[in-house]
Amino acid sequence: VIQVQPAGGRAYPVIAGAGVLAHLPELIPPACPHVVLIADDQVARVHGDRARELLAARTRVSLVTFPAGEVHKTRATKEKLEDRLFAEQVGRDGLVVALGGGVTTDLAGFVAATYQRGVPWVAVPTTLLAAVDASVGGKVGVDTPWGKNLIGSIHHPLAVCIDVDLFQTLAGSEVHNGLAEMLKHAVIADPGYFDALLHAAHDLIQLTPAACLSAVVRSVEIKSEVVSADPLERDLRQVLNFGHTIGHAIELLSDFAISHGRAVAIGMSVEAAIACQLQLLSAADLSRLRTALRALGLPVSPPVAMVAGAILQATARDKKGRQGRPRYVLPRRIGEMSTGPAGYAREVSDAVVIAALHEAQACSA
Amino acid sequence: VIQVQPAGGRAYPVIAGAGVLAHLPELIPPACPHVVLIADDQVARVHGDRARELLAARTRVSLVTFPAGEVHKTRATKEKLEDRLFAEQVGRDGLVVALGGGVTTDLAGFVAATYQRGVPWVAVPTTLLAAVDASVGGKVGVDTPWGKNLIGSIHHPLAVCIDVDLFQTLAGSEVHNGLAEMLKHAVIADPGYFDALLHAAHDLIQLTPAACLSAVVRSVEIKSEVVSADPLERDLRQVLNFGHTIGHAIELLSDFAISHGRAVAIGMSVEAAIACQLQLLSAADLSRLRTALRALGLPVSPPVAMVAGAILQATARDKKGRQGRPRYVLPRRIGEMSTGPAGYAREVSDAVVIAALHEAQACSA
Repeated sequence: VIQVQPAGGRAYPVIAGAGVLAHLPELIPPACPHVVLIADDQVARVHGDRARELLAARTRVSLVTFPAGEVHKTRATKEKLEDRLFAEQVGRDGLVVALGGGVTTDLAGFVAATYQRGVPWVAVPTTLLAAVDASVGGKVGVDTPWGKNLIGSIHHPLAVCIDVDLFQTLAGSEVHNGLAEMLKHAVIADPGYFDALLHAAHDLIQLTPAACLSAVVRSVEIKSEVVSADPLERDLRQVLNFGHTIGHAIELLSDFAISHGRAVAIGMSVEAAIACQLQLLSAADLSRLRTALRALGLPVSPPVAMVAGAILQATARDKKGRQGRPRYVLPRRIGEMSTGPAGYAREVSDAVVIAALHEAQACSA
Repeated sequence: VIQVQPAGGRAYPVIAGAGVLAHLPELIPPACPHVVLIADDQVARVHGDRARELLAARTRVSLVTFPAGEVHKTRATKEKLEDRLFAEQVGRDGLVVALGGGVTTDLAGFVAATYQRGVPWVAVPTTLLAAVDASVGGKVGVDTPWGKNLIGSIHHPLAVCIDVDLFQTLAGSEVHNGLAEMLKHAVIADPGYFDALLHAAHDLIQLTPAACLSAVVRSVEIKSEVVSADPLERDLRQVLNFGHTIGHAIELLSDFAISHGRAVAIGMSVEAAIACQLQLLSAADLSRLRTALRALGLPVSPPVAMVAGAILQATARDKKGRQGRPRYVLPRRIGEMSTGPAGYAREVSDAVVIAALHEAQACSA
């Protein structure tokens, strides 16, 4: 059990382990008269009955599903789910349980955030990435035609239940998303964790529960420390964007054919190369990062067909930039990010970005 | 200027006066690059140009409108407004200004609450009721086919600008809504305010700016005191439901032909009669309440055609009840609510409710 303390909010427990789904009912407040279990149709097929039965021993349960896939993480799906909750007569004393990957925790958490002005929710993530993302930060929301997660709010869960035994059913891209995120945490904050991920790479790719558990726990701790040290996203929290300036550009340019996790992996490789060009990071650490990426089955180079100039241009569309100038957070060694005069995020000259992109493309062998 | 201090949030200013719209630009943070002014088409026609010009002296402004009327306070309208904001490229550093009545402040405040996970908003209420409601409590939201305000959140404004000169264009039902709400505040908390409302009744009905200003200020103060004394809606805050148990039932039974304000006025008259039946309130105070209601142009009796038994039945649908038993908050004299063993809200026997309904219907002359 990890206690997560959101800024200005109540601390909540994250329980993680093999088989802890059995403890899910204990996370529901005794007085709760009605639980709505929200899952996509695929996860519902695999885990829905078990979760419903466990909860039904505690209180009234309604299972509500939606079609699987990020394409359904929309305002329209949110409205349909809300209408189902009204039809099931879920009151202000109801509670939402989100069972699934990041699409489900984002969507169901957002449903909970605005249903009757907010009902509590419990996250039961079934992917590595959702385990980390749903546990810390409280970000919930849906996509729009203008971009991902553009409508949403901050709504911290009442509790998070991470049963690493549920991770067995992941699609490959979901594994990549989780592993890239975890390696990012290691590079940001913990060289020991970096070594552990490298060491356990094979087991992690196979989703071995014990390996997943230690990694999830350490990632939740790191993210929680970063977020609580900088609740207002003033400076430190920007370190979580490592790999994302280039990563987002590549994801966009590929028209999302390259998954978020793989794009961020490439982004970390390129941004570490930028840090090398700027003599912030040693060549040895750049090489160690790429070794770890490869060991985790992640790419280190942009596709050869993607022209460096086009990637550079796409970075200008990053929503975290100021006046169209994208900003980068860069490592100074494995486990520590570099700070400049303006804090963690800095602008980088186009020439350096282009050089780093070429360097990364050249190392693709 | 009244400072309102929400629980666990930042204090914000409510500026109120005749002509204070001119100070609206000063409420916008200097660094804000883009303001979205949201108004319904009717209010936009009357006040849109002036508000836009005032703001344009400060920063970039987009005026976005929607069709007037509670029937448009929906998730669909929210989505359309969001799409307009995206099309206007409003970023996370944008700000929403809600210019209008309660529909607009509820809807635009809710748009602000979830746009890019929340942008700040400034309320510029143009009705008496919206002035009080938007100023305190932070409740924003939209209606659904299952009921009013069922999807929403709490999103306190950055500031509220109440220009009583804008109130001239109110529809009659909006005046009733505001006056009923204000009289409710007086009965709950302040006998001096009650006398002042009675004294100024004629000016208030005419929307005389000076009369509106003192009433709005006192109502905002009272509501703010009640809400900040009980941020979690544990007990005291329920006094704000005075008149609403019967009021909601009558509103529902009339299929919303009776406006909220008139329904709550009838509700206060009936619930005060309940308090009399229970010997909590004197007959003299019941009579004073009805005198004030009549002076403010508000009804004191349910329509004769509405059968008491039907009203009683409709109270069971109140969302604030427990297990279908509606609860009442009752005055012990003008300016003070009564507390029972379970706090301010109490159950009342059907016989007493029926008797009070008959009594109120009989006094309709």
